[in-house]
Amino acid sequence: MTSTSSTAAAGDHSNPSNQGNPSEVLATFAANLAFEGIPHEVIERTVNLYVDWVGSALAGKGARPVESIAKFARATGPSDGPAEVLIDGSRTSPFFAAMVNGAASHFVEQDDVHNGSVFHPAAVVFPVALALAQQLGASGREMITAAVAGYEVGIRIGEFLGRSHYKVFHTTGTAGTVAAAATAGRLLKLSPAAMLDAFGSAGTQAAGLWEFLRDAADSKQLHTAMAAANGLMAAQLAADGFKGAKRILEGAKGMAAGMSTDADPAKLVDRLGERWATVETSFKYHAACRHTHPAADALLDVVVKNKLKPQEIERVVAHVHQGAIDVLGAVVKPQTVHQAKFNMGTVLAIVSHYGYAGVNEFEQHFLADPVVAFRGKVEMVYDEEVDGAYPARWIGKVSVYLTDGRVLRGRVDEPKGDPGNTLSRDEISTKLRQLVKFSGALAEADVDALLEAAWCIVDEPRLGDIVGQLATARHANPAAAAA
Amino acid sequence: MTSTSSTAAAGDHSNPSNQGNPSEVLATFAANLAFEGIPHEVIERTVNLYVDWVGSALAGKGARPVESIAKFARATGPSDGPAEVLIDGSRTSPFFAAMVNGAASHFVEQDDVHNGSVFHPAAVVFPVALALAQQLGASGREMITAAVAGYEVGIRIGEFLGRSHYKVFHTTGTAGTVAAAATAGRLLKLSPAAMLDAFGSAGTQAAGLWEFLRDAADSKQLHTAMAAANGLMAAQLAADGFKGAKRILEGAKGMAAGMSTDADPAKLVDRLGERWATVETSFKYHAACRHTHPAADALLDVVVKNKLKPQEIERVVAHVHQGAIDVLGAVVKPQTVHQAKFNMGTVLAIVSHYGYAGVNEFEQHFLADPVVAFRGKVEMVYDEEVDGAYPARWIGKVSVYLTDGRVLRGRVDEPKGDPGNTLSRDEISTKLRQLVKFSGALAEADVDALLEAAWCIVDEPRLGDIVGQLATARHANPAAAAA
Repeated sequence: MTSTSSTAAAGDHSNPSNQGNPSEVLATFAANLAFEGIPHEVIERTVNLYVDWVGSALAGKGARPVESIAKFARATGPSDGPAEVLIDGSRTSPFFAAMVNGAASHFVEQDDVHNGSVFHPAAVVFPVALALAQQLGASGREMITAAVAGYEVGIRIGEFLGRSHYKVFHTTGTAGTVAAAATAGRLLKLSPAAMLDAFGSAGTQAAGLWEFLRDAADSKQLHTAMAAANGLMAAQLAADGFKGAKRILEGAKGMAAGMSTDADPAKLVDRLGERWATVETSFKYHAACRHTHPAADALLDVVVKNKLKPQEIERVVAHVHQGAIDVLGAVVKPQTVHQAKFNMGTVLAIVSHYGYAGVNEFEQHFLADPVVAFRGKVEMVYDEEVDGAYPARWIGKVSVYLTDGRVLRGRVDEPKGDPGNTLSRDEISTKLRQLVKFSGALAEADVDALLEAAWCIVDEPRLGDIVGQLATARHANPAAAAA
Repeated sequence: MTSTSSTAAAGDHSNPSNQGNPSEVLATFAANLAFEGIPHEVIERTVNLYVDWVGSALAGKGARPVESIAKFARATGPSDGPAEVLIDGSRTSPFFAAMVNGAASHFVEQDDVHNGSVFHPAAVVFPVALALAQQLGASGREMITAAVAGYEVGIRIGEFLGRSHYKVFHTTGTAGTVAAAATAGRLLKLSPAAMLDAFGSAGTQAAGLWEFLRDAADSKQLHTAMAAANGLMAAQLAADGFKGAKRILEGAKGMAAGMSTDADPAKLVDRLGERWATVETSFKYHAACRHTHPAADALLDVVVKNKLKPQEIERVVAHVHQGAIDVLGAVVKPQTVHQAKFNMGTVLAIVSHYGYAGVNEFEQHFLADPVVAFRGKVEMVYDEEVDGAYPARWIGKVSVYLTDGRVLRGRVDEPKGDPGNTLSRDEISTKLRQLVKFSGALAEADVDALLEAAWCIVDEPRLGDIVGQLATARHANPAAAAA
């Protein structure tokens, strides 16, 4: 009626029989990760991911659900503090800065994604890394190291929880809570044992259900906000000696036991320190659910190569993986911009009309007559090859039936933004500028200073304000702003 | 690839096809619940549950995990506010008061429990009811009405999620988040549509895994703390227009879909307004996991009736339901007071030696030699009758094998504290006094004033301090303190 291992594990962090549990191995890796041990190209890519995230976080300004969470934070938290809320430059405690920045990061659906885990790391990792680094006065290297810890941990947990988990749970909310704890724990310099405590407290708070999607509800912002905030809290509690379960991931009553039917514990510790999952992360080019991107790029390829006009297209079949049908199938007639980003028909319509499905294209055209008309011509069909490759590879395949009777086939093996087809630093800067312009979070001149500082983050000896004092700083001390 | 209902439900609260969903019916009930519509005996019992809760919340003072969460709240939240932290009388925003009082309420395992749902309502409902009532200056009647809403909702959700849920999830953390939202939503006078939004935001944050138990980790305090705080947050967000899923409980990607295999939606709306589940709630007499109480009372009955000394007992077989084995089976050799409360052997040992397993008995004797020796004589065995009756009834059955060869059978059909064997107001007052004495939260004279005010809660026109100004209030205005 009890497993023998349960006695062995009780109450002793140093118990040798406990070593080698996947949760502990992963926590130890996160606790011991050092800047010097991370390959140069991983650091470089993580800086790209950081700058890309800043753009997404600023893009959330003015969005109703984001502002609602910001209002709650102002009413509930302190009126000042060491950490910065990016959408308005206000200051508060790290918990609330992480919460609001987490809420903001995912709103326009332009933040990064790791294909294999279907997890959006930036939205839950960087809000915590920045808030805590600002509180601690940590260096840019420490912040980037902590972010890599969060990415490596969160991605592996997402892969571990598997496809059955993602069918009902928003992995960014669940795995994201532990990723946030790993990030915070690394900045707090937690011991491996305390990091495991942080995992335990984070994992037992991990939550996020897809049910909100069909109602166009605001839960996605809540998921990233609370994953970031609760993960940070878990690490802060662990630093104070608050104990967590030692096998929250793979244990008999842990996350996988409760929320997955196909979990594979081997994925938690897959080539730690050799395989850098961080660099497998994709940037999002289109401002839509990632499940639409492969088909969008495949269609775009056909349209560009054949110089097609939208009215020449009679119908489009998108050949997709089951996950795309599960997530996108709930939305048939989008009523909001957010729903439109989860509607394959709308995304392909916008791509065929405007060549790009960006934030401005959605905002202005998602209910335009030609887009609505084209939407009805799009059908998703399950495809064995695409599904078999997923989630490791997100293949895009479309069949385009033209009014003249021709049928054209489109295919991309790596949608734009994927590791083999990644964005350049110029493209990331341009994307950030577009996002900031969209939300109006900063003046254009401030964006220059912001970008200059952001690209040099690893040279920053002590993290300070990112946006709060931008204009002031530029005038008072141009050198400091550019450092 | 999509259900027809998904289109019908999208984005419209007033859509007629949406009426009658269990989530919506339950939210509407909670939003519309009025003091005048609640039977007198339900109000009276809820006052008993409130006073019983105050004792449990005060008993948490000084407990490491509780103080750790309190420390986090001080570092993260505002340094003043309208709501009171009971363990130290400090003031903060309602979110953090609910968090710390929620953490404190469950620590000594003396707070109430609803048998059928295996849910501890007080620990997540009253922290929210009190914090928000203090902020709003609500009356005692409004607070008690909101608490009844939380009990009725949380109990039905616990029953709905069923036994498969409780095997891995701590129902008080999961169902408790929605119960907390119902309580907060009622005090905030949310419309039925906004209450449904609050349910959506709460349900998608619902969390709490049993994995911590075998490690004697501190997660239980985190579960009640965050269920209370997140439920409160969900309702406050809903009051601001933040949208939640409309079928977070029974929907295809909702709580039951993700966290239960035997959910029964009919239980969500079972005789709403006719059956008052609140009065089915049991008070906890022994300071141990409720799963030990039936056997403890059955053994106590045998011991008292036969005037047995512990050394006359050779071994004890506790005939239990599967849930008891699932929850208690993980702890074989308790190392902490908390684990001891989840160890059937220790509980029966303490009962047989001291006639009562209270907070002081555990603290002083759980590792005493006679208790440890007796612990090894206790065995749990699955019993078909007990399991069949559970969770509606918690039957206690023991076989007591004596050193003289006799075998005595003990049985109780309702353990002390259950609805048919409930505690009197005197017994509740005495229990509160013992708990406050245990933690040292208040001086004895202050407890008199506290109890006097607490028993008259429904006559309170405007909720103010409960403990913060006790001594001052008694000296400055004795009538006010006693009101």
